[in-house]
Amino acid sequence: MNNKLTLGIFGFGVVGQGLHDIIKTKNLNLAIKRFVIKHPEKKRTLPAELFTTDANAVLDDPEINTIVELIDDADAAFDIVSRALQSGKNVVSANKKMIATHLAELIALQHEHGTSLLYEGAVCGSIPIIRNLEEYYDNELLHAVTGIFNGSSNYILSKIFNENLPYATALRQAQDLGFAETDPTLDVGGFDPKFKLAIVASHAYGLYVSPEAILNIGIDKLSASDIQFAREKNFKIKLIPTAREINDTSVVLYVMPKLVSPENILYNVENEYNGVLVKAAFADEQFFYGKGAGGHPTGSAVLSDIAALRYGYRYEYKKHIDANGIAYSTDWELEVYLRYEDENLIERLGFTSISERYYAENYKYIIGKIKLDNILKNRAVIDQKGLFIAEIA
Amino acid sequence: MNNKLTLGIFGFGVVGQGLHDIIKTKNLNLAIKRFVIKHPEKKRTLPAELFTTDANAVLDDPEINTIVELIDDADAAFDIVSRALQSGKNVVSANKKMIATHLAELIALQHEHGTSLLYEGAVCGSIPIIRNLEEYYDNELLHAVTGIFNGSSNYILSKIFNENLPYATALRQAQDLGFAETDPTLDVGGFDPKFKLAIVASHAYGLYVSPEAILNIGIDKLSASDIQFAREKNFKIKLIPTAREINDTSVVLYVMPKLVSPENILYNVENEYNGVLVKAAFADEQFFYGKGAGGHPTGSAVLSDIAALRYGYRYEYKKHIDANGIAYSTDWELEVYLRYEDENLIERLGFTSISERYYAENYKYIIGKIKLDNILKNRAVIDQKGLFIAEIA
Repeated sequence: MNNKLTLGIFGFGVVGQGLHDIIKTKNLNLAIKRFVIKHPEKKRTLPAELFTTDANAVLDDPEINTIVELIDDADAAFDIVSRALQSGKNVVSANKKMIATHLAELIALQHEHGTSLLYEGAVCGSIPIIRNLEEYYDNELLHAVTGIFNGSSNYILSKIFNENLPYATALRQAQDLGFAETDPTLDVGGFDPKFKLAIVASHAYGLYVSPEAILNIGIDKLSASDIQFAREKNFKIKLIPTAREINDTSVVLYVMPKLVSPENILYNVENEYNGVLVKAAFADEQFFYGKGAGGHPTGSAVLSDIAALRYGYRYEYKKHIDANGIAYSTDWELEVYLRYEDENLIERLGFTSISERYYAENYKYIIGKIKLDNILKNRAVIDQKGLFIAEIA
Repeated sequence: MNNKLTLGIFGFGVVGQGLHDIIKTKNLNLAIKRFVIKHPEKKRTLPAELFTTDANAVLDDPEINTIVELIDDADAAFDIVSRALQSGKNVVSANKKMIATHLAELIALQHEHGTSLLYEGAVCGSIPIIRNLEEYYDNELLHAVTGIFNGSSNYILSKIFNENLPYATALRQAQDLGFAETDPTLDVGGFDPKFKLAIVASHAYGLYVSPEAILNIGIDKLSASDIQFAREKNFKIKLIPTAREINDTSVVLYVMPKLVSPENILYNVENEYNGVLVKAAFADEQFFYGKGAGGHPTGSAVLSDIAALRYGYRYEYKKHIDANGIAYSTDWELEVYLRYEDENLIERLGFTSISERYYAENYKYIIGKIKLDNILKNRAVIDQKGLFIAEIA
């Protein structure tokens, strides 16, 4: 079974172009019929008849059996993808926000209409983590899945720790190189890795958790004092999403900066690279590393999905079916470093134990244990100027 | 389609036991009917009726539809596996030597009899590299696949470089811990990683190359001088199998010690861990890391294969079908470090260029470029006491 695919592609940005570059070098039994774009006035490198601004021209074209959705706008993307799935077309998407936010609905649509939605490119670019969770770790008990899921913030942190740049300079450099958006909040605020974590959790643990229910703390409040603290202890700071089975029935999910020691394999994941660390009961520690973004790396993941659709491949969400009462939990204690200004805050946050305190005129920190629940409840307080929190391994 | 599997397992060593441990914790729609063992007098942890010494009792049992082959003896293993494939049973094997040596025959048998042979556990234990090459990089142009494929020699090299142990002591420690055999030649001589390399080459490039045609140089001639040389230059020595596309129609394959710098991701792969580094045209650099051996890590790979057989999974060797005239070549120039004693040898080896020479009473070395052809031709000379050769990146 190798079905000929006729593709309609939404978006002709860096991934869409990368994909076109890849497809034209191959004899893959697939053809791109039409790109849907938003700005017809832009100069394109391909013939004009390949482009349209009319989504319906593609969604209603019976010859097009496969939709590739590569646009930024998550709401518009959801509209496109759900219409496509309903009309019997299979879909490949790389839109992490859209998928994480609508996961349960998208799975229901696939079941109802017998269509398939694949999205390897949405999670860690080129790294085939979803496929491996689906196909290879489907019978494995996974203790934890962590890693570096966001290339922009990792690039910034690498510049800070390896080249002594201050945060603002590193951010600007990342923006100049196209690794970070003009509004970098999605990345440095930890939202982007949170969307990816929510998607990973569905394949690793069968959990469909709304991103809104998951804690994300970013690196945007990182100060020179925090950097010096980490350096003196021989740590690097990395932005780490964590999915961890804390007992037979509970999984915690959160995104937080973490003080990472040189023994940790994530310590050496630098710049725009991503890494996924899977701790499994039988396979033990498994690590996947590759480029987290960019037209060709993400394009290669999208192409692998397209190629798999030729053979009728679909995700089975087996862990969800076998979930055996596993539920999302926030009842978990973390050890953290917290830089703060206002002494009253410490009581409010309710540290369960404190192992270190430091006071100086311009720099105060505390190291201690705190419940994830409490961090979530006080998210708005923690996420303000003057504070920085990071997990200690 | 989820077929009930009834298993006959050859071998009840560390992997067979690991597999049994895993299966009993799961509800996988599969059952182990019988283990075939060689030594009935050994005390077993399971009921006696689960064991037999009679291979035919399993191979001729029509109820058993799946054979799991986990024995050491490559000739006996080939006999078992080919009989099973001929009689309509699917097979999972972890026997790298047997598979590498008989690959073309085994593929022909599968085609002829419509059966499936899977062997993820044969290559780098827990790391799902074969599955990813088959399923995920099937449309990728792969520039190179390299890595650390042998846990025993890597354990020895880690002890040497991280704990300053001499080679002999490190080897003994590896043997005491069960990481190396009493006769360690297969591992430290580079044969085991060569078998794995030959298997990888079939999935990465569609090449079926007899292991005998592939150069393997091991680490068993490593001396204190070589170690000191590497240390002074801030290198570690690792045993590295390489598959590399040198042009549109040629792929080189060889196993050789390599001087690895800290920037190389393989530098940090230590002890019994394995790592596979894939350089792909579009996905760029991809790295897979995990335990290379042991009952549970290898057992988990074997189990993934068994689970995939329930869904009728088989390798397609797509790269072989699409090979487009790609052939194995040895026409390639390497830069090497060579410690030697006999001055005459240098001429015989035919260095094409020399960039460094060093002479002292007890230690002479040369750094230069040499053809892979020439190394292969002079394999017996190079592989003797007093010489050590390593590739320089």
